[in-house]
Amino acid sequence: MNNSDIKRFISLYENERIKIEKRLLTAFEKRKPASLYEPVKYILHSGGKRLRPLLVLLSAKAAGGSFSSVYNAAVAVELLHNFTLVHDDIMDNADKRRGRATLHKKYDQNTAILAGDSLLAVAYEYLLKDCNGSAKNVVSAFTNGLIEVCEGQSLDKDFETAENVTLGEYKIMIMKKTAAMSEMCCKVGAILGNGSGKEIKALSLFGKNIGIAFQIQDDLLDIMGDEEKFGKKTGGDLIEGKKTFLFINALSKASGSEREKLLRVIKNKGIKPSEVNSYKKLYKKLNVIDDARKEILFYTNLAIKQLNVLKKEEDRKIFNWLADSLIKRIK
Amino acid sequence: MNNSDIKRFISLYENERIKIEKRLLTAFEKRKPASLYEPVKYILHSGGKRLRPLLVLLSAKAAGGSFSSVYNAAVAVELLHNFTLVHDDIMDNADKRRGRATLHKKYDQNTAILAGDSLLAVAYEYLLKDCNGSAKNVVSAFTNGLIEVCEGQSLDKDFETAENVTLGEYKIMIMKKTAAMSEMCCKVGAILGNGSGKEIKALSLFGKNIGIAFQIQDDLLDIMGDEEKFGKKTGGDLIEGKKTFLFINALSKASGSEREKLLRVIKNKGIKPSEVNSYKKLYKKLNVIDDARKEILFYTNLAIKQLNVLKKEEDRKIFNWLADSLIKRIK
Repeated sequence: MNNSDIKRFISLYENERIKIEKRLLTAFEKRKPASLYEPVKYILHSGGKRLRPLLVLLSAKAAGGSFSSVYNAAVAVELLHNFTLVHDDIMDNADKRRGRATLHKKYDQNTAILAGDSLLAVAYEYLLKDCNGSAKNVVSAFTNGLIEVCEGQSLDKDFETAENVTLGEYKIMIMKKTAAMSEMCCKVGAILGNGSGKEIKALSLFGKNIGIAFQIQDDLLDIMGDEEKFGKKTGGDLIEGKKTFLFINALSKASGSEREKLLRVIKNKGIKPSEVNSYKKLYKKLNVIDDARKEILFYTNLAIKQLNVLKKEEDRKIFNWLADSLIKRIK
Repeated sequence: MNNSDIKRFISLYENERIKIEKRLLTAFEKRKPASLYEPVKYILHSGGKRLRPLLVLLSAKAAGGSFSSVYNAAVAVELLHNFTLVHDDIMDNADKRRGRATLHKKYDQNTAILAGDSLLAVAYEYLLKDCNGSAKNVVSAFTNGLIEVCEGQSLDKDFETAENVTLGEYKIMIMKKTAAMSEMCCKVGAILGNGSGKEIKALSLFGKNIGIAFQIQDDLLDIMGDEEKFGKKTGGDLIEGKKTFLFINALSKASGSEREKLLRVIKNKGIKPSEVNSYKKLYKKLNVIDDARKEILFYTNLAIKQLNVLKKEEDRKIFNWLADSLIKRIK
């Protein structure tokens, strides 16, 4: 891929992101009551990468359709994503999201529960706008994604109090909580783009594997972010005592006093910010940083392999660029 | 309608209720993780009238279809209903539901939020099972019902702190919070039963108007229940300071010291249980009990008028019986 391709793809992404942004805002412009929809607009106005809508658009095109026939579905997946953010933030008692107060902190918890429910409801409304003959398949893919996300969130909550979580269990959790969503975005786009069975399957697998890589990259960025100019304090997952890919892998490799040190994170439900550096050193010593990088590369390559099914070089190129950007992202 | 008709309808309802009950329980039998689905089963095992599934079944048959082709859709509307109960109970901070601890009291709030979300997700999964060519229309009707319910719940929350609520505003709220759901049940059944446009419209209007009557009857039962063997202490709405049909109507009719007395309910966010009888007397004096009964009859008759569109006398009869039973219900 040469520099002019990359420039073109960045500019395409930026153009489409702006279009999605506009559509997200107009989706709630005329709805009432304000008590329900102002909070919804608050979360939608807080920005975001809008990667999931991009997956819908690119998949539709790669399957033989066009961007213009799936903008509503693209809006739908972003609304669904924001529904999960609003409800997850309540469950995690999170104060901040994208640099602003979370919805339940800005308003109150009841408002946030109901705003989340509405985001989900309107997501279905938008999805249906782009469905005709394929409504059953599309809504079914969307609904399966939603069910997986709920199950993944439940597993993630279970992990908070679980004594022992294996890497296998961790992967099942992120497949449900993160990867099922990117898989669904590609599947919905591919079905709406009238893709063949083979294309729908390949694009779905691209979405799934890139989602797994994305989540492990997220875990990695949390601890390595400062070195890569993350722009926020690192080690948040350790401070909160979260069982990430790095932590679970470290625990499975450590023994003796190193194991004791890791077990203290679970016992004390997190560590002090001043301890982050010492744990980072332990992660490096146990080689779990490199393990994570390898794992990210493994799933990214699995995703990229799927692209051979796509007919046009241009489509293969842009998905390749996207996969590459996600590995190299710094936030 | 003679006694043998009534016996037949009661027995049909009971048979179908049992079938729905079984399907509700098997819907979550094999799902994992238990942390997500045990709470879901808890709420589904707590019984309920299962009136909404009955509306789906009867509407499908009246439109020319059969019960057997809409059992999944019938399960779907009950799951949707239970989703609203679980989330509403969190928002109302309710302790009890159908004589048992509410889901968020039995487990915790986060579990209840997520269980509610799952109920909604699986509702869509079940709805789709019965959809084929009509998926877009059916899912659209279902989604509109969901959006209305969220808006209605938001208005209901607004009323808690509103100084002044008119009867017109109250009716909009119950149309969204209660009647949109029964309207949707009839519409979904009628579409899946392959009804004509006229039949779908008539059955939808039956559902809407019976829903309005049902909610006003609910408000009435709360205060008059003991006289009609309600079987629980009356006046709960007054104790909680809820702005019901009776209260709003009373306030609009009262003046002087009677108005002051009613305004105290708002100011103090409710009354003491020992004061219920005195407010009941005031309601009677202001004639708002009779007004409510007239209103219930008005909407029930509007519902019954729609039945003329139905082709078979048997269908008209059973909907008539259902409308009649809802007016005469004591709980």
